[in-house]
Amino acid sequence: MAPKPAAVIQPPASAECCPSVLAAPLGADQAVALAQGFSALGDPVRIRLLSMLAAAPAGEICVCEFVGPIGKSQGTVSHHLKILSEAGLVHGERRGRWVWYSLDHARLAQLRAAIAA
Amino acid sequence: MAPKPAAVIQPPASAECCPSVLAAPLGADQAVALAQGFSALGDPVRIRLLSMLAAAPAGEICVCEFVGPIGKSQGTVSHHLKILSEAGLVHGERRGRWVWYSLDHARLAQLRAAIAA
Repeated sequence: MAPKPAAVIQPPASAECCPSVLAAPLGADQAVALAQGFSALGDPVRIRLLSMLAAAPAGEICVCEFVGPIGKSQGTVSHHLKILSEAGLVHGERRGRWVWYSLDHARLAQLRAAIAA
Repeated sequence: MAPKPAAVIQPPASAECCPSVLAAPLGADQAVALAQGFSALGDPVRIRLLSMLAAAPAGEICVCEFVGPIGKSQGTVSHHLKILSEAGLVHGERRGRWVWYSLDHARLAQLRAAIAA
């Protein structure tokens, strides 16, 4: 079967977001956007998925290649990739049977800036 | 009643920790230490507590002064401060009846470095 055309299955991270935590007391709405991003980083499996993506020579990894190094089931890996995707930290692109994931460096930079003095 | 001598009620954050997520694939142990820190940041109330501490002119805030601006009960505020304290992001010091909290800028810098390129 010929692979289907590439399809972006997640929207890119929004460009608004995020004020610095260290600049001034934040309101509730501003804090929610930031907390979603940090919450996505707040799990050891997701931290490892991000570090694998950051180190990938081609800048992307097939979803099928995470299971061995991470030592978790495909279902667990997919669950964590979904959370990372919803937080804008990774993007998935379907090519035929598999989805390839890449890291969103701009979103990570937003979170970094939010805890910068 | 005269205030008791100042007592540090939480140990300072450890100096080891943390490798960069972006430098190389992380092992499980390394990821756990990082995830604890980011998980502590992953809640809107805790983000707001940190931003209040960062903006405090004296660099510290009495636990009794968070309730009004945050709009949560003293119990809820104390619960979130405990999580931040366990993650090494804030330190509490008892003086008489109240505990004063301050931000640990070094711990925040560790987390920032962990998502720096």
